[in-house]
Amino acid sequence: MSELTHFNEQGRARMVDISEKNETVRTARATTSVRVNELIYRQIREGGNKKGDVLAVAQVAGIMAAKNTSQIIPMCHPLMLSGVDIEFEWAVDEAADSYEVFLYATVRTKGSTGVEMEALTAASAAALTIYDMCKAAGKDMVIGPTMLLEKTGGKSGDYSRNEA
Amino acid sequence: MSELTHFNEQGRARMVDISEKNETVRTARATTSVRVNELIYRQIREGGNKKGDVLAVAQVAGIMAAKNTSQIIPMCHPLMLSGVDIEFEWAVDEAADSYEVFLYATVRTKGSTGVEMEALTAASAAALTIYDMCKAAGKDMVIGPTMLLEKTGGKSGDYSRNEA
Amino acid sequence: MSELTHFNEQGRARMVDISEKNETVRTARATTSVRVNELIYRQIREGGNKKGDVLAVAQVAGIMAAKNTSQIIPMCHPLMLSGVDIEFEWAVDEAADSYEVFLYATVRTKGSTGVEMEALTAASAAALTIYDMCKAAGKDMVIGPTMLLEKTGGKSGDYSRNEA
Amino acid sequence: MSELTHFNEQGRARMVDISEKNETVRTARATTSVRVNELIYRQIREGGNKKGDVLAVAQVAGIMAAKNTSQIIPMCHPLMLSGVDIEFEWAVDEAADSYEVFLYATVRTKGSTGVEMEALTAASAAALTIYDMCKAAGKDMVIGPTMLLEKTGGKSGDYSRNEA
Amino acid sequence: MSELTHFNEQGRARMVDISEKNETVRTARATTSVRVNELIYRQIREGGNKKGDVLAVAQVAGIMAAKNTSQIIPMCHPLMLSGVDIEFEWAVDEAADSYEVFLYATVRTKGSTGVEMEALTAASAAALTIYDMCKAAGKDMVIGPTMLLEKTGGKSGDYSRNEA
Amino acid sequence: MSELTHFNEQGRARMVDISEKNETVRTARATTSVRVNELIYRQIREGGNKKGDVLAVAQVAGIMAAKNTSQIIPMCHPLMLSGVDIEFEWAVDEAADSYEVFLYATVRTKGSTGVEMEALTAASAAALTIYDMCKAAGKDMVIGPTMLLEKTGGKSGDYSRNEA
Repeated sequence: MSELTHFNEQGRARMVDISEKNETVRTARATTSVRVNELIYRQIREGGNKKGDVLAVAQVAGIMAAKNTSQIIPMCHPLMLSGVDIEFEWAVDEAADSYEVFLYATVRTKGSTGVEMEALTAASAAALTIYDMCKAAGKDMVIGPTMLLEKTGGKSGDYSRNEA
Repeated sequence: MSELTHFNEQGRARMVDISEKNETVRTARATTSVRVNELIYRQIREGGNKKGDVLAVAQVAGIMAAKNTSQIIPMCHPLMLSGVDIEFEWAVDEAADSYEVFLYATVRTKGSTGVEMEALTAASAAALTIYDMCKAAGKDMVIGPTMLLEKTGGKSGDYSRNEA
Repeated sequence: MSELTHFNEQGRARMVDISEKNETVRTARATTSVRVNELIYRQIREGGNKKGDVLAVAQVAGIMAAKNTSQIIPMCHPLMLSGVDIEFEWAVDEAADSYEVFLYATVRTKGSTGVEMEALTAASAAALTIYDMCKAAGKDMVIGPTMLLEKTGGKSGDYSRNEA
Repeated sequence: MSELTHFNEQGRARMVDISEKNETVRTARATTSVRVNELIYRQIREGGNKKGDVLAVAQVAGIMAAKNTSQIIPMCHPLMLSGVDIEFEWAVDEAADSYEVFLYATVRTKGSTGVEMEALTAASAAALTIYDMCKAAGKDMVIGPTMLLEKTGGKSGDYSRNEA
Repeated sequence: MSELTHFNEQGRARMVDISEKNETVRTARATTSVRVNELIYRQIREGGNKKGDVLAVAQVAGIMAAKNTSQIIPMCHPLMLSGVDIEFEWAVDEAADSYEVFLYATVRTKGSTGVEMEALTAASAAALTIYDMCKAAGKDMVIGPTMLLEKTGGKSGDYSRNEA
Repeated sequence: MSELTHFNEQGRARMVDISEKNETVRTARATTSVRVNELIYRQIREGGNKKGDVLAVAQVAGIMAAKNTSQIIPMCHPLMLSGVDIEFEWAVDEAADSYEVFLYATVRTKGSTGVEMEALTAASAAALTIYDMCKAAGKDMVIGPTMLLEKTGGKSGDYSRNEA
């Protein structure tokens, strides 16, 4: 579909009607990342062991944001999410002084519309939480790029990002 | 300051105490962007004129998210924001088939802690709203990188991102 | 039905049980208005073209309030709204110095209870937003009357306001 | 002041900066009403005595909505309300079959901007709650007109609605 | 089931997937209590008659908290509650100077997961509200113990607390 | 003070006016506990090391609930919390098959009213989160008693619970 359907005949935003759409299982998976300095990297890694766990807090933030998506994104439909998960993966190249944590948010529902926005919002909120908890050790962190990796379910069919 | 101060002696997250910090005027400015395809670019630009204004909705989403930051980011202090603004700037290179809208969120407060997170959250929510309203015309959009550009006020002094 | 069903045997408010009610498509349409002075009228009309669009912000406020109705109205059931739209219509009589914008909020869901409150809440929030954004140019604005125009779906049948 | 200050140079909505404004005590008082049929009137009055108290629930809804105003009205500044009260007053003319309850919401704060919107929002949410709890006995209820009665404090001075 | 299912393979919290679970009617009933001093007891009892009704406010707080449970408890699934009720019961032994009000929260839904947390949260919020409204007359009040009394529906079967 | 000040002259609840009260630093400390079975005890303790950290999630839930108190407790004033911390302490008597985790929530602000409710709400939400995450391994858990341990600041003076 190639039109902006979020507008009514007056040219004003609306929440599009989905009452005729079928309830199916739908999933979406989004990713973002946070690029940090070496000090922050060491503190997060150590913290996970003994000094306090930044990623545990980010995880909770992401899950709660997923549930809150329709209050953050104006035209998003409220949805009963059936599952939310977030995973972290470090990409570290010490020689190049490069420290980046990748976040993968997976959201599932059984509903009438997709959960792409919930996955993107979960990833974003988790990344922002990492920024917040580490910013005393360096404000140069960079979040993203943030993007949808894949979705399944719904009339528009499955989507998988082509990374070629 | 170079420690993760968001943890207590048990190694668990806490919201750090700021009751001894002075109330001063503080500002922060953050940026992100959304890279879109040509179709979406044309629809947003036209919409701003007559068919519906995606960026107006994104603007509202960003401002409301700024006010809601302490409910989205777990260790963020609640703050009485005194001003929030978001600006948009297109970077288009038709020859290279490149269409990107940059978002700049500026937040001000008179309070005991900074507003970096509010600016970053405002920019993120506005970008996610653009994604949401345009995703029917292409799910390959990329959000970010998202970063802090500058902050003023507070004991830790001013910050300005060094883009060299 | 002619009883206040929102009370339990102790005479205290409860959220009535709807778990036995059928899921059907339900719609509701409510209206309100904002009576403004000539200055505000001109500013809103011009703004829609070039200086800033008050009604676009009101539209977003109304849609978000519709989704948030069960958090604003204590005994309202949470509902997965499937569609929300708001339209504006000016009634202007310059000779009589009368400037009034009418708001029409339409809400749809597929659920076990009606969406009258969501439509009324959307209209009210949108009207309050117009008041907020224009009050620097005159605080005498009057909101309403606010009322339900029609509803469809559900056991109690359809309703259409008799305006005779 | 006679301009729409809620827009930036791009013509987009912003939350105006109030960081230079003084903190003073500010009050606002708003009113609305709900016109009901005789059956609803009798049920509410009896309920107040023994069967369940509609107005007690409306009171709580109004107070909570006042505190939530900056989340409902997009460009409203968050404010630390220092006091909220709501009063009810029946205007009944049985001969004319006319039953109307007037609501008066009073809000106080010590802050940098006024509380007109909080008073208007409190009155509106309380009225909507009355509608919700009584709608099984008649959907013809009419809410409003809703308006500001007076405000005190702040640079723009006091305001009192001229009802002549 | 005897494992902590709320963690993913990385040992981090997740909201477990329930998209394969059946939608059935589910109920839960939880209890807590507030132990007060004689002065508070007399004020609440009188208030119920003529001076203001603490329990009416607590009732509303409990019902709204039930609806808000998935925003308060991080790993809770959002649920469309179909009914919420709260009852109060005094246990008074004047000879022993003992005044305690018991709260019973009953929650119903038609959904894919149980409502135990909603019932416990409703009871807790109602009890906290009693504390709040009476604390000027004595801060020694004690809330709880808080516990689940029974649940019905769902694969794990019914539960009834064994009070032997 | 020994009166219920939360009611207006109509006998209806109000949020009492605090605009004349001084801003001072205020603290409050509250406690609750969760009594669990041996299986749950072992799972939580192991989880803290390698399988997933229940208490880390409970910590975040408590801190976010503290910030959200004025939206959960109807007559609570909104407050800019300056610090929130939660600590856990196990009391285990294996011989008696007794496993109980105590929670201590400490809240600080610089404001015009106390933070007792914020501390009590933080403790309650953290305890409810423990219940939620462990209920698959036994629903007999008991939360509380929940009580205020101490408060400082404000006109009514300091309070310390007398546990004799």
